[in-house]
Amino acid sequence: MRKDFGARPWLYPQPVLVIGTYDAAGRPNAMCAAWGGISDDTELSVCVAAEHKSAANFAVCGAFTVSMATERYLAECDYLGVVSGNDEPDKLAACGLHAVKAPHVNAPLISELPMAVECRLVSYDPDSCRLVGEIVNVCADESILDEKGEIDPDRLRPVSFDPVHSTYRALGGVVADAFIAGTKI
Amino acid sequence: MRKDFGARPWLYPQPVLVIGTYDAAGRPNAMCAAWGGISDDTELSVCVAAEHKSAANFAVCGAFTVSMATERYLAECDYLGVVSGNDEPDKLAACGLHAVKAPHVNAPLISELPMAVECRLVSYDPDSCRLVGEIVNVCADESILDEKGEIDPDRLRPVSFDPVHSTYRALGGVVADAFIAGTKI
Repeated sequence: MRKDFGARPWLYPQPVLVIGTYDAAGRPNAMCAAWGGISDDTELSVCVAAEHKSAANFAVCGAFTVSMATERYLAECDYLGVVSGNDEPDKLAACGLHAVKAPHVNAPLISELPMAVECRLVSYDPDSCRLVGEIVNVCADESILDEKGEIDPDRLRPVSFDPVHSTYRALGGVVADAFIAGTKI
Repeated sequence: MRKDFGARPWLYPQPVLVIGTYDAAGRPNAMCAAWGGISDDTELSVCVAAEHKSAANFAVCGAFTVSMATERYLAECDYLGVVSGNDEPDKLAACGLHAVKAPHVNAPLISELPMAVECRLVSYDPDSCRLVGEIVNVCADESILDEKGEIDPDRLRPVSFDPVHSTYRALGGVVADAFIAGTKI
């Protein structure tokens, strides 16, 4: 027997994405979003409600960054999600995080978050809340790379958002190889 | 120092979504997708390339379901991702899974996958690969509910896709309360 929960925005897992922009004065801002993901080979999309300070920044920058929230800086990332840049003009400093300009786009990286996607703005529609970015580059700090120079999720320690319980979850271990497990059937 | 990886469709975590549809003959089909997520309060979107059999089914059904791939049925879900419905007309039977009509939309649920989102088709654009669904209902089998009747992620055991290593990962434990951890800063 299945139980119905009605129309809920629930998927597992949902990411915890930290969206970085500059405002018109050149000040870095960052916010959190769990509604979004890769939308094709070269694009990602995120829902950003129009009342967010970031929403006004997309056109200013023509770009944005998407950093993965991590276990290590989870309280700081949560702070970015609960406090609006409209109320606290320098959220990053207020929670002890640091911004540095991304090398490939006009938007800030968060120094403490070691993996980020640099995006060129494709479109932002305040009515639908849909932000679309062309992926220009993925960058990762050397501290989270493995011996082969690849991103190591066990060093990155990204988190996910549990929409049912409003908690953050760690990433678990490897349970199978993709595109191989099913070939044994 | 950060290392650049170029334009890659990489986020952590990415979901493993099993998209259920009926074809014109009424046969259930299912495929896997890691590019997608909640796109606003009432919608989700997934990238489905036009060559998939499912792509022709969206207009037939006017609906689709999105089930969470689970650790328990991971080989079967991976099979749904590696074998095309164009080559194997009854993929579900071929890997031992069972379909049952979803109660609220004209699309199949996979009996073995205990959590699913029932969606009404909003749009499918084969050029951009973008499939958009209005969330009509979330349903979950009683076997994955906790004592309060809520979905328990530790019983669901959803997986995520690691795009760098092409592996599947388990969901880890709770590491913080969302919208609370950051208020202590």
